[in-house]
Amino acid sequence: MRHDYEPRERHARKGKRIYDPIHGFIELDAGEVALLSAPVVQRLRRLRQLGLAYLAFPSAEHSRFSHALGALAIGTRAFDALRDHSPEAFDSAAAFDEQRALLRASLLLHDLGHGPFSHACEAVLGVRHELRTEAILALPELREPLGALDVDPNAVLGLITGAPGADPVLRELVSGPNLDADRMDYLLRDAYFTGVAGGTYDAAQLIASLRILEVDGRPQLGVDGRGVVALESFVLARYMMFATVYFHHTTRAFERVLRDVLQRLWPDPRRLDDVAEFLAWDDFRVIDDIRELDGEDVRALRERRTLYGLAAEFNADRDLLTFGLCEDALRARWGNGVWSDSQEQLLHRLPLGTAGAAPTVRVQLMGRVVDARSASDLIAKLSGKAFWRKLFVRTDVASVDEARAICADIIATGGQPRLFEV
Amino acid sequence: MRHDYEPRERHARKGKRIYDPIHGFIELDAGEVALLSAPVVQRLRRLRQLGLAYLAFPSAEHSRFSHALGALAIGTRAFDALRDHSPEAFDSAAAFDEQRALLRASLLLHDLGHGPFSHACEAVLGVRHELRTEAILALPELREPLGALDVDPNAVLGLITGAPGADPVLRELVSGPNLDADRMDYLLRDAYFTGVAGGTYDAAQLIASLRILEVDGRPQLGVDGRGVVALESFVLARYMMFATVYFHHTTRAFERVLRDVLQRLWPDPRRLDDVAEFLAWDDFRVIDDIRELDGEDVRALRERRTLYGLAAEFNADRDLLTFGLCEDALRARWGNGVWSDSQEQLLHRLPLGTAGAAPTVRVQLMGRVVDARSASDLIAKLSGKAFWRKLFVRTDVASVDEARAICADIIATGGQPRLFEV
Amino acid sequence: MRHDYEPRERHARKGKRIYDPIHGFIELDAGEVALLSAPVVQRLRRLRQLGLAYLAFPSAEHSRFSHALGALAIGTRAFDALRDHSPEAFDSAAAFDEQRALLRASLLLHDLGHGPFSHACEAVLGVRHELRTEAILALPELREPLGALDVDPNAVLGLITGAPGADPVLRELVSGPNLDADRMDYLLRDAYFTGVAGGTYDAAQLIASLRILEVDGRPQLGVDGRGVVALESFVLARYMMFATVYFHHTTRAFERVLRDVLQRLWPDPRRLDDVAEFLAWDDFRVIDDIRELDGEDVRALRERRTLYGLAAEFNADRDLLTFGLCEDALRARWGNGVWSDSQEQLLHRLPLGTAGAAPTVRVQLMGRVVDARSASDLIAKLSGKAFWRKLFVRTDVASVDEARAICADIIATGGQPRLFEV
Amino acid sequence: MRHDYEPRERHARKGKRIYDPIHGFIELDAGEVALLSAPVVQRLRRLRQLGLAYLAFPSAEHSRFSHALGALAIGTRAFDALRDHSPEAFDSAAAFDEQRALLRASLLLHDLGHGPFSHACEAVLGVRHELRTEAILALPELREPLGALDVDPNAVLGLITGAPGADPVLRELVSGPNLDADRMDYLLRDAYFTGVAGGTYDAAQLIASLRILEVDGRPQLGVDGRGVVALESFVLARYMMFATVYFHHTTRAFERVLRDVLQRLWPDPRRLDDVAEFLAWDDFRVIDDIRELDGEDVRALRERRTLYGLAAEFNADRDLLTFGLCEDALRARWGNGVWSDSQEQLLHRLPLGTAGAAPTVRVQLMGRVVDARSASDLIAKLSGKAFWRKLFVRTDVASVDEARAICADIIATGGQPRLFEV
Repeated sequence: MRHDYEPRERHARKGKRIYDPIHGFIELDAGEVALLSAPVVQRLRRLRQLGLAYLAFPSAEHSRFSHALGALAIGTRAFDALRDHSPEAFDSAAAFDEQRALLRASLLLHDLGHGPFSHACEAVLGVRHELRTEAILALPELREPLGALDVDPNAVLGLITGAPGADPVLRELVSGPNLDADRMDYLLRDAYFTGVAGGTYDAAQLIASLRILEVDGRPQLGVDGRGVVALESFVLARYMMFATVYFHHTTRAFERVLRDVLQRLWPDPRRLDDVAEFLAWDDFRVIDDIRELDGEDVRALRERRTLYGLAAEFNADRDLLTFGLCEDALRARWGNGVWSDSQEQLLHRLPLGTAGAAPTVRVQLMGRVVDARSASDLIAKLSGKAFWRKLFVRTDVASVDEARAICADIIATGGQPRLFEV
Repeated sequence: MRHDYEPRERHARKGKRIYDPIHGFIELDAGEVALLSAPVVQRLRRLRQLGLAYLAFPSAEHSRFSHALGALAIGTRAFDALRDHSPEAFDSAAAFDEQRALLRASLLLHDLGHGPFSHACEAVLGVRHELRTEAILALPELREPLGALDVDPNAVLGLITGAPGADPVLRELVSGPNLDADRMDYLLRDAYFTGVAGGTYDAAQLIASLRILEVDGRPQLGVDGRGVVALESFVLARYMMFATVYFHHTTRAFERVLRDVLQRLWPDPRRLDDVAEFLAWDDFRVIDDIRELDGEDVRALRERRTLYGLAAEFNADRDLLTFGLCEDALRARWGNGVWSDSQEQLLHRLPLGTAGAAPTVRVQLMGRVVDARSASDLIAKLSGKAFWRKLFVRTDVASVDEARAICADIIATGGQPRLFEV
Repeated sequence: MRHDYEPRERHARKGKRIYDPIHGFIELDAGEVALLSAPVVQRLRRLRQLGLAYLAFPSAEHSRFSHALGALAIGTRAFDALRDHSPEAFDSAAAFDEQRALLRASLLLHDLGHGPFSHACEAVLGVRHELRTEAILALPELREPLGALDVDPNAVLGLITGAPGADPVLRELVSGPNLDADRMDYLLRDAYFTGVAGGTYDAAQLIASLRILEVDGRPQLGVDGRGVVALESFVLARYMMFATVYFHHTTRAFERVLRDVLQRLWPDPRRLDDVAEFLAWDDFRVIDDIRELDGEDVRALRERRTLYGLAAEFNADRDLLTFGLCEDALRARWGNGVWSDSQEQLLHRLPLGTAGAAPTVRVQLMGRVVDARSASDLIAKLSGKAFWRKLFVRTDVASVDEARAICADIIATGGQPRLFEV
Repeated sequence: MRHDYEPRERHARKGKRIYDPIHGFIELDAGEVALLSAPVVQRLRRLRQLGLAYLAFPSAEHSRFSHALGALAIGTRAFDALRDHSPEAFDSAAAFDEQRALLRASLLLHDLGHGPFSHACEAVLGVRHELRTEAILALPELREPLGALDVDPNAVLGLITGAPGADPVLRELVSGPNLDADRMDYLLRDAYFTGVAGGTYDAAQLIASLRILEVDGRPQLGVDGRGVVALESFVLARYMMFATVYFHHTTRAFERVLRDVLQRLWPDPRRLDDVAEFLAWDDFRVIDDIRELDGEDVRALRERRTLYGLAAEFNADRDLLTFGLCEDALRARWGNGVWSDSQEQLLHRLPLGTAGAAPTVRVQLMGRVVDARSASDLIAKLSGKAFWRKLFVRTDVASVDEARAICADIIATGGQPRLFEV
């Protein structure tokens, strides 16, 4: 129902207008269309935004391509709102336009360094986004359209990787830990495509509340005091989507399986250090190429067969002891047939700062700038370190029912309830 | 996207099918249509679900009539889900049908005891729902259609007022503090009609997770372990709607004004103890009749003029001291020109149990029944007593700007941030 | 700082940001807030957008107030899109800003001339929008805020009444027969609040396709060729909402009843020619004041009792003969107990031009400007005169069942099917 | 306990509850879960519902798998509605349950015979759904779970292929030309995932209006007279989705390209007559395997480069002559570099009967059963043969601008407007 109100001040004749179910029409000018047409950007169509989550949520088949467009759209709305509400932060219309073009290009390109099924891929190849993104941005197919847009590839790289010298407001919007357009889009998008209500937050009010605040003499993205409730809804959306979708046991179990399969598919992972080779891989190719491999794990992925069964879940610090006892008991019984998962592997999806000391969102209250945890009792309660744990057993060597019984026994004895029924 | 959830097993030729934006078609059988046609039920069209909130959210003009239909609709869905998931709790199809008819009638009638602009009306007349509902249910216009439905008016009264002898599952669904269909509908409905995103929760999963649990040998409504995330979303929706809509300072300020006006409009409030007189009043009549009265407060209500300006807001227990200092300072300056509001007047709208000792939702985990606060770290964090406070000053005797400056000074000195910018 | 969370008159330096479920936040500047605060504008809160339709669609209780804000919102989006896509039509940024301010004020005020339950009221008082709007715009409470906005009340009047001298583009947006913001909003809004899917059209694409075309040397609002499908969806939305909501037999029947009641309530309708007296009336007052009157018709309105029962419906020119035969037969049997309704009383709600000769939407195709009926086979088929007819009988003097049997007989004999089952 | 949160094959005693953004939770019983787990059903995850349409609508990446679940869901709702509203058509509860199980299995399996990118695949391989579906249903992986459900594979085949002996009501729901659950789902789903508003129709009212009518002594699926407006909205949704999505020039152009590529990828198409070989192909494999081929067409598909540019579009019978003149002129200039597309290749997507003689929907009006075209003036106007044509030129041999100029000239001379600006 919400619309992309974006004015097309600099509408070029050969621009495009693209349907998007989340933000309405997304408009690109001619130079941006050229960027969008680069093969490395079109490759994002073959990378799914939620990896294997479609095995738990059948309609979660949306790609990083539509997400990249969405991040551009909502990031632009946020930036235009800053112009209206924090005009003093911009020296001139020309400076604003220049930053806006840089922001849009950076959001469109922010996911280029992802390999197939990002998490499993990183587990096998190592996390090398920064190097990869740098190499990809150096490709002629990007340098040329970026040049035509007067956008510096190094500035794009700085925003995507969060380089210290980058403009702090743009950096926060592209790759910040809290108020980034990446997250603003993917929460809405993932909620829409999974059919889970949880990710919906008050985007209109959040964006209308963004301000450029001065903290220690430097500009920083923050929120006006009237937007605290919208900020709360944003933090809660992150929590709910994490609990419902991102850390869903089915998705996690299949990502574990995929990790094993990728190790067989890529016996020499270093070959993918080569950018051309890396870019030749995508979700489609992995799913298709593994047909040639044998094994239960391949069938599990292509035919959705359960290979890791959930034995127990925990989500509070008071559960840590019980969790340890359960894991020990399962390992004593089935050794390597046990897999222990925790949210650390997905930290970027969790709400505001898991460590108490991390800087959080700044809020402007009566002329003072305070931490969001001071401004909101709810955010204070939700902040702090998370303790999400899951225990799985391999169904080919262990009995899931027996594993559950073992855990249930320990939990009942210890008086420590687990979060979810399994 | 909308569903026709209602099975029409006992579809009568003269039943009705009513459009509803929240639940899709709502179907009533012929006997229920007769009940719906009673003048006391039609009167609900002239009582707004959110009272004066339309002065803050212009489109929040929906009536208790559409809410009553919605509560019937979602309550029926919940009850049908219980039949599917807890069939052992029903002795026979006939017993189920009988309870279902009672439930539907009770939900349709649960708001009959409300006067115009419920809260302000109660402040002037006193809370007499129980007596009023009893008297209204005794009217021939209800006794007759209830009789035709084989529904006992006393059973309806018991469910609405939460009489101890009533069936505990039906009572929870009609008037319980947590899992009632009243709340299930109004959160969705109020979110829809205000345009505030906050009230949306995962209704489909919550309903699919409802179970009849046995607690201390008695059946009780609860939630299956797999529904904990849905329950969390429900609790959060209550929190968000309270923060955004129900305790909105504009609404509260106008309800304060209305209280004064009603005292002038009803110099002898006891006259309304008479049921016929009571039923002759509704929101429309109040808004129209006050045209005859003079005064700034009347103009405030009819023309939306601010009479109570917000000076400061607080929402955590650590703010209580600062709140007290601010209130004292304002009262020292303007005496009765100060109004101090707190959430106690709206307790029923707040999330799960504000007092730590209150019973909360029961959750079934691995065969055991536990408190929702044990099953969910999030619910544990959100539970406990609430400390929402607002300070207003009358604009005809005080300066809002000065009042804010006074409070800001105290807050800055005390190092105690307030929640919202004003 | 330009934007504000919630209307507060006493701080009118600040603008406002108002929640709306259809368009998201609607932002007003300080001057517009002053205009919104005028009592004659606030009165729109007591006029329902769909009159008595809530008796057929219980949640259709939205007011002309939220519609006026919505028309302002969508009209502004349309006008901003014109600046982007037809920049050559604006001499300067200052000229654009001036027209935009005039447009927004006119849309906010376009419904001020409506009386309670517009249609029934007009039937009793006569249609005097033009005179009334002129008198209302002359009131000091409007002249002052309009003056502060540098908006000429006569220009507003010209746009609302469609005066020949007015700017043709602005006139079309305010009061045109096809591409007006009034209709753009009310279709979406009425669909949202009734829960009927039909009114949804592709607003984003329609707005993005608007152009200022040159026709016979004069600028005129039209649609770019790429927008023909969106225009079709807009025309169809009008058709569907007319069929489902605006010409719904229940609403029509109650409007007929109200007409009789108003004649008794206002024995001297000329008294309402006085603007102050006219403005003292609204839906709330009518519904409340008629309590004092006796009669079945009053009970019908307040308690939703059927007084006119539907005997038959027709909707094509080939049905005209049958319709006439049915009407004659019913009148022969019950005389004045028969009411024959036709869409002429609602003409402004019907799709593109009911008379073949009427000018329709202009579409730009390959540099030529053509009629929408040439550009779209669908629009061509839907255009032309409409022939909607309904026959009712009074339930206190006639038998609806017998009336239906009479009509069914004629229809079966004549081989002419009617549109709807009754 | 019958319902389960998420599919887990190894616990197949339990049913499943699957998130779907269109229909909410979709519940399957244990036997249906086993059917869903068959590799040939899981393969539907690798076939996109809209083929290459994602190149025009980036988020249209949904699979036939989620559509199959959705068809099952909405078909079940339709069938349950028939039990409520046409109970006389069912001999017993057991007969109803048996038919319901057959219907659900058939809807889940109705798309198994599709190859990669259905339309282009059919153009290369020929349309062999019937034979392929028969062979696939004979596979042990389906026969076993169907057997466990007591569902006869031949009955399923009969419903999918529309065999004359099949139950006419079930056949209409599975593979009928008008009121099939296939279409009921895909209109809503395609609208949701493309972001195009057009496909939304009043599903709740359509379903509530379905009836089993007796026509010439045989039961037939039809619509109650009260549902004519909902039927109109359904017909219009088909029209709008056809115009906006299914016949979109970008999708059509890429399907044309794919056809050429597939001919090179499958030099011996007869190899795919073997079911095992056929099933080894899916969208993922095609997109991945063509990396090995050279050519502009491959780059066009993987990198979204335009190879066929649109020269002109037409949509009415009065345009046929102009269309022929344009095609001749283009062919005279560029020979085989011209591609002429028409809707015949997509006939199944077009509204009610393109040939006047085709049977359409039956409507029950006052005890008589009539053709929908008699009951609705709108449906009458929309029925009849369609005349949609598009002319493309290959961008590697022709100039799109020149082609458009040629057509524009002919159109202007002939006075025949085309539908869309290009």
